[in-house]
Amino acid sequence: MTSMDLGPSEKVKPLIAAVREIVREKVLPLEVEFHNEVGKAEGGRFAHTERQKEILDEIKKEPKERGLWNFWLTGSDRGYGLSTVEYAYLAEEMGWSPQLGAEAFNCSAPDTGNMEVLERYGNEEQKNAWLSDLLQGNIRSAYLMTEPDVASSDATALQFEAKLDGDEWVLNGEKHWASGAGDPRCRVYILMAKTEDDSAGRHGRHSMFAISSDHEGIEIIRPMQVFGHDDAPHGHMHIRFTNVRVPKDALLLGRGRGFEVSQGRLGPGRIHHCMRAIGQAERALELLCKRATSREAFGRPLHKLGANYDIIAEARISIEQARLLCLKAAWMMDQGDAKAAGIWISQIKVQAPRMALKVIDEAMQMHGGLGISQDTPLAEMYTGVRTLRFADGPDAVHRMVIARDELKKYTNR
Amino acid sequence: MTSMDLGPSEKVKPLIAAVREIVREKVLPLEVEFHNEVGKAEGGRFAHTERQKEILDEIKKEPKERGLWNFWLTGSDRGYGLSTVEYAYLAEEMGWSPQLGAEAFNCSAPDTGNMEVLERYGNEEQKNAWLSDLLQGNIRSAYLMTEPDVASSDATALQFEAKLDGDEWVLNGEKHWASGAGDPRCRVYILMAKTEDDSAGRHGRHSMFAISSDHEGIEIIRPMQVFGHDDAPHGHMHIRFTNVRVPKDALLLGRGRGFEVSQGRLGPGRIHHCMRAIGQAERALELLCKRATSREAFGRPLHKLGANYDIIAEARISIEQARLLCLKAAWMMDQGDAKAAGIWISQIKVQAPRMALKVIDEAMQMHGGLGISQDTPLAEMYTGVRTLRFADGPDAVHRMVIARDELKKYTNR
Amino acid sequence: MTSMDLGPSEKVKPLIAAVREIVREKVLPLEVEFHNEVGKAEGGRFAHTERQKEILDEIKKEPKERGLWNFWLTGSDRGYGLSTVEYAYLAEEMGWSPQLGAEAFNCSAPDTGNMEVLERYGNEEQKNAWLSDLLQGNIRSAYLMTEPDVASSDATALQFEAKLDGDEWVLNGEKHWASGAGDPRCRVYILMAKTEDDSAGRHGRHSMFAISSDHEGIEIIRPMQVFGHDDAPHGHMHIRFTNVRVPKDALLLGRGRGFEVSQGRLGPGRIHHCMRAIGQAERALELLCKRATSREAFGRPLHKLGANYDIIAEARISIEQARLLCLKAAWMMDQGDAKAAGIWISQIKVQAPRMALKVIDEAMQMHGGLGISQDTPLAEMYTGVRTLRFADGPDAVHRMVIARDELKKYTNR
Amino acid sequence: MTSMDLGPSEKVKPLIAAVREIVREKVLPLEVEFHNEVGKAEGGRFAHTERQKEILDEIKKEPKERGLWNFWLTGSDRGYGLSTVEYAYLAEEMGWSPQLGAEAFNCSAPDTGNMEVLERYGNEEQKNAWLSDLLQGNIRSAYLMTEPDVASSDATALQFEAKLDGDEWVLNGEKHWASGAGDPRCRVYILMAKTEDDSAGRHGRHSMFAISSDHEGIEIIRPMQVFGHDDAPHGHMHIRFTNVRVPKDALLLGRGRGFEVSQGRLGPGRIHHCMRAIGQAERALELLCKRATSREAFGRPLHKLGANYDIIAEARISIEQARLLCLKAAWMMDQGDAKAAGIWISQIKVQAPRMALKVIDEAMQMHGGLGISQDTPLAEMYTGVRTLRFADGPDAVHRMVIARDELKKYTNR
Repeated sequence: MTSMDLGPSEKVKPLIAAVREIVREKVLPLEVEFHNEVGKAEGGRFAHTERQKEILDEIKKEPKERGLWNFWLTGSDRGYGLSTVEYAYLAEEMGWSPQLGAEAFNCSAPDTGNMEVLERYGNEEQKNAWLSDLLQGNIRSAYLMTEPDVASSDATALQFEAKLDGDEWVLNGEKHWASGAGDPRCRVYILMAKTEDDSAGRHGRHSMFAISSDHEGIEIIRPMQVFGHDDAPHGHMHIRFTNVRVPKDALLLGRGRGFEVSQGRLGPGRIHHCMRAIGQAERALELLCKRATSREAFGRPLHKLGANYDIIAEARISIEQARLLCLKAAWMMDQGDAKAAGIWISQIKVQAPRMALKVIDEAMQMHGGLGISQDTPLAEMYTGVRTLRFADGPDAVHRMVIARDELKKYTNR
Repeated sequence: MTSMDLGPSEKVKPLIAAVREIVREKVLPLEVEFHNEVGKAEGGRFAHTERQKEILDEIKKEPKERGLWNFWLTGSDRGYGLSTVEYAYLAEEMGWSPQLGAEAFNCSAPDTGNMEVLERYGNEEQKNAWLSDLLQGNIRSAYLMTEPDVASSDATALQFEAKLDGDEWVLNGEKHWASGAGDPRCRVYILMAKTEDDSAGRHGRHSMFAISSDHEGIEIIRPMQVFGHDDAPHGHMHIRFTNVRVPKDALLLGRGRGFEVSQGRLGPGRIHHCMRAIGQAERALELLCKRATSREAFGRPLHKLGANYDIIAEARISIEQARLLCLKAAWMMDQGDAKAAGIWISQIKVQAPRMALKVIDEAMQMHGGLGISQDTPLAEMYTGVRTLRFADGPDAVHRMVIARDELKKYTNR
Repeated sequence: MTSMDLGPSEKVKPLIAAVREIVREKVLPLEVEFHNEVGKAEGGRFAHTERQKEILDEIKKEPKERGLWNFWLTGSDRGYGLSTVEYAYLAEEMGWSPQLGAEAFNCSAPDTGNMEVLERYGNEEQKNAWLSDLLQGNIRSAYLMTEPDVASSDATALQFEAKLDGDEWVLNGEKHWASGAGDPRCRVYILMAKTEDDSAGRHGRHSMFAISSDHEGIEIIRPMQVFGHDDAPHGHMHIRFTNVRVPKDALLLGRGRGFEVSQGRLGPGRIHHCMRAIGQAERALELLCKRATSREAFGRPLHKLGANYDIIAEARISIEQARLLCLKAAWMMDQGDAKAAGIWISQIKVQAPRMALKVIDEAMQMHGGLGISQDTPLAEMYTGVRTLRFADGPDAVHRMVIARDELKKYTNR
Repeated sequence: MTSMDLGPSEKVKPLIAAVREIVREKVLPLEVEFHNEVGKAEGGRFAHTERQKEILDEIKKEPKERGLWNFWLTGSDRGYGLSTVEYAYLAEEMGWSPQLGAEAFNCSAPDTGNMEVLERYGNEEQKNAWLSDLLQGNIRSAYLMTEPDVASSDATALQFEAKLDGDEWVLNGEKHWASGAGDPRCRVYILMAKTEDDSAGRHGRHSMFAISSDHEGIEIIRPMQVFGHDDAPHGHMHIRFTNVRVPKDALLLGRGRGFEVSQGRLGPGRIHHCMRAIGQAERALELLCKRATSREAFGRPLHKLGANYDIIAEARISIEQARLLCLKAAWMMDQGDAKAAGIWISQIKVQAPRMALKVIDEAMQMHGGLGISQDTPLAEMYTGVRTLRFADGPDAVHRMVIARDELKKYTNR
């Protein structure tokens, strides 16, 4: 009953095998081609070329036909009814292709979290307007939280403002790192704004909105670069809102309940991010080992030189530990006590990305110059995973959460 | 069926609670007193004082009466029939008291491994001579493997010699780090010797013996010190054998099958060691947190100063990861494929001790000078755990094992 | 006489002050503008826009007028006659602007090394053709060493071929990571090729050439990307040579003496790289501290939160140590025993880049998302310094060199 | 003039050679014998045996005759007039023998600091009573600072009390970690006590005393153990003072000026400790390399296995960096600005011990079980150096000092 089963269930095993096969056989081989198209579209870097559109269709075709689709939708009759542990195994497999893996199965961030929000808190109109299309993979969505002038470690200080004026909210302010907003298919923003005055308390001043991306007054200022990339065509945007008027019922769940929405959204999202990072670490280790066994220096294969056995062993140990910790966090999430699970999610949020970064970095080093070039996916993986150390809360904040929980056992006495 | 349940079973949960209570309420309070008696016995440092004998009886009384005893004995009708995962949880609890915890439940190393060897491979005479008394906790045993002149990383090179002369084996050579041989109750040695010539191959030249500790020609040269301790009265001895004659049937399992015996013995033993190390890490973290919340500097409690939140959070993360990895290794052991489990055991053998050392070291640092003094158990814990990085194979050898296994996926292609 | 003075000499102190002022007041403010012009030139990403040309002129104007120019040229009447220690201090200052700092003073890699090679080994014709223009900063040069199919850790295995055919050498093969070859002003390549057969021994088979970049048969296949950048317009190119015919006297120093040339070139170059990395670390620490003191979270400035004191202190300690080690290596170089100096250079080659990467990474983390975006120079610094862990020999090779030297004291006995 | 010469001066070079030869040829060979005598004296563990007395005389004989004596006494006509940099080189050499090296040249802690205090602040009577004998090496001294109930990170909170009663001070309280107080030759204590009430401010409430160790009311409660050692016969004692009456002029420098005295004392002391730690690291690396070249496993010398090249190279790099940083700190001290030097001393105080611990730990690991046993000096070195991470301020406090200094550049603006 309360056993802690962290293994793949009988139900999910065939799904893992199917996702693995599709990612490795169908998606990975298209990555380079997709990447090489960037910037060649008529609409510029943030448009898709015809070939990119074809690729995006191609990778989704088989999953959609075989029903390998929307795995993330837990607790809904529209979904698979997978547990978080079960989904975690799938997320790892999708993570092998950081750019296209999740997309192939309609499990991309920030869409999964956004769809969950719409599913739970959206009204019929919103569901009709966006949820159906998102569930079909026809459109994409963005999540607008972080602001340029507020430390991202402290979300309660966000300043972006929404004021009720008659039947409409009027939105003013700037958001940056708006993930997904660069995608040409993006149609809907989930957005946090301050709607209440300070008397509502630090966690009660903000509300969550679902709005169309084409309102007047919305201006995309620039893409945010990640290590010099703009991640075109799927980038993080810096967006300015000037007197953007949205309907009164664009509000989700209720005034002042923004953090309630975001917390429900963030927990599973962090697990998915971490499991995808583990998938990337596994891929990096595979690349490392392949290089180590196929390349020679000083007349011997690289794996027989220097500390390479130790590097490989440490990578293996660190991956296994991080995976088990993520599965434990997922299992905690499945037990239904979000607060208790939160401590575990904070742990993986600190551990999984830095573990993956270390493994990827070693894989780079094993490849010499190629490791940081376009001839391997390692650099792209590195920069993507590096963002996870800020996204959804920087490491330092998660460590604080863990430590406070630990100390409570003693200070409460 | 093949689910990977790493949680405590319903069966073991009450046992965990019982062991925990006894260790923390009955055993820990006696540690300091036991330690302070060292060297006061008439027989010298390697004898027990009357009070020490009383303490050893006292801590075993309740466990024995309540049947909380010999948990380790898996797959035997004499034992509990616990799985390795189940036992692992108990080993963690016993680990809180590194010196007395396992003894209280008759689960001490090297006795558990030695009893398992006698149970599986001993003849009736041997079982009568030693196994019953060991199972009762009346006597202790020692394990004699390492030799002064052979790198401990490569056990196949051991040189201690046994030659058959008529109906007796004649043993010559030296063993050191003979764990348990300093205990005044030690009556039996399990010992590896080279019996075959080199044509038998690296893994076929050695045999395992069970012999009485009081044979003529056995001379205890000195105790081996660990960070300046001789671990009296339970130390590791340096022993010389000069023409020691033992019966022909002192041989276990068969000529040249020494590694077969030792491998069967080492796997579970390493898991137990690692879980006990995790227990020590938990205790260290508790001490750290208690100090951090009770001591002030610069007008604030220590936990609010400097990097202490981070230190606590990292300790928590690293303990959880290592525990899960150990449980996974234990679960692999329970699946019945010793070779597959071996890779996991090598992983924990590298990871668990160094994790525990790090946590203990941070706990020391939080205590200032007290952390390394007799006023906390931390220094004793540190030195004990430090030995695990050599014992049963140094870290480097385990990393080599892990790396080779990892690379096999690519080199075999 | 043999005192080990690692301080800035009286001679170099005013130069340091001048370089510092120019870099910080004149060069740094132009970095963003220069960067934003990339890709806007008619000739494409690897051409300069008019504004870029202006900037390049502007930053060089004052240094050239004031004679703050070609500092690197040691032991030549054309140069300053600075010692390596003296130059090291200047390199650190230039390093603050990784893209433009060294250029302002005509001290860029790979030009400095290439000019040194031409100065020492070039004939009059070569000096007239390229050296004067390089010394004036009118043209740039490239260094072609690494090859796609050879592990960069073992340069003696390079396969690019030059065959003498009458009065001409015929060059065939591929080079990648050709640093500087993407610069539109690049006119000359210094290139290593295999000219002798294997009987000449591992270190005697290669020769060094100085050739014009516009020979027929030279084809730039693509730029090598560094973490997704092509470093336009100053990139590392992948170049193919097909029957490229160059004059017989394009050979420098002599047949089979390529490693002699490259070794003389690499020692000082590594010191310069490392000191520039230290300059970047200092800049990163300044950015980190400024952010930590100006940004608030949870109602307190960041520097008062979490482990930030420790992060800052560790950064300071690691920078000071690495700087002193670099200065010691520079001092060893000045003592005239290149072999003895080599061990020290290997030490800094391992230490300085990884130290700088760590400091830059912490600075990123302190900035949250901005740390990896175009709003700070940190990501560009990170990717640039990361290449140093491969360039001029990967870390592992330098560690091997150091260890062998250390062990020689014992194995030679 | 302001050059930063970190090399050994011509003056100190022959001294280095002499000290090195004596330590390695005369002192090291006696270490084991000295150690084996512990506990065999009639007076118990904290007395010397006849043989120990002989050894202590023997090692001092040649240094005293040759005038290799009291090197530490800077700025006094009784001493060598060495600079701190010069002395640092000698401290490193003495550090090779942690127990006897400094003693041979009358340069042991805490005597050197105590002698300096007496030299500077003692009256004639005190100098006659103790200084002459200390300078001759006839007696030893102790330093009593730390108290059981006060966090050692915050010395301003010390509670040990001295009250003036007529012509005498009356001392009450406990001190522990009283270094040197276990030596049977110890005759004098330098001791800090609170003499003023809190209105005198945090740094003005304490005074320093020089008192005889045989006053009535002084009771040695117990030795403090370090990793289970009591460091007999030279241990750190826990001492209780009950109404101990000492003369009014036992006070040094003046009421409330205790921190002035201790600060002057601590700076050089920390440098000496760190340089001795570096000497130990060098010795550990020598032992490591000798083992790596002389021992085989799997048919190859250990140094050719696994990551051993990397371990050796990293040890070399870290030692060189730490040594240079210590020399820089010493050089700063010689410049006469104690406050400026303090930041550098804090840096080495953090760095040198942990560096040495890492190298010693690796040397242990290379030796297998012997590395922690009495068969190598490594464990003793480890435990001794480990204490340095608390002594004279724990790491965390030094990091805070460094960080605050770094941040001042920005917060003062």
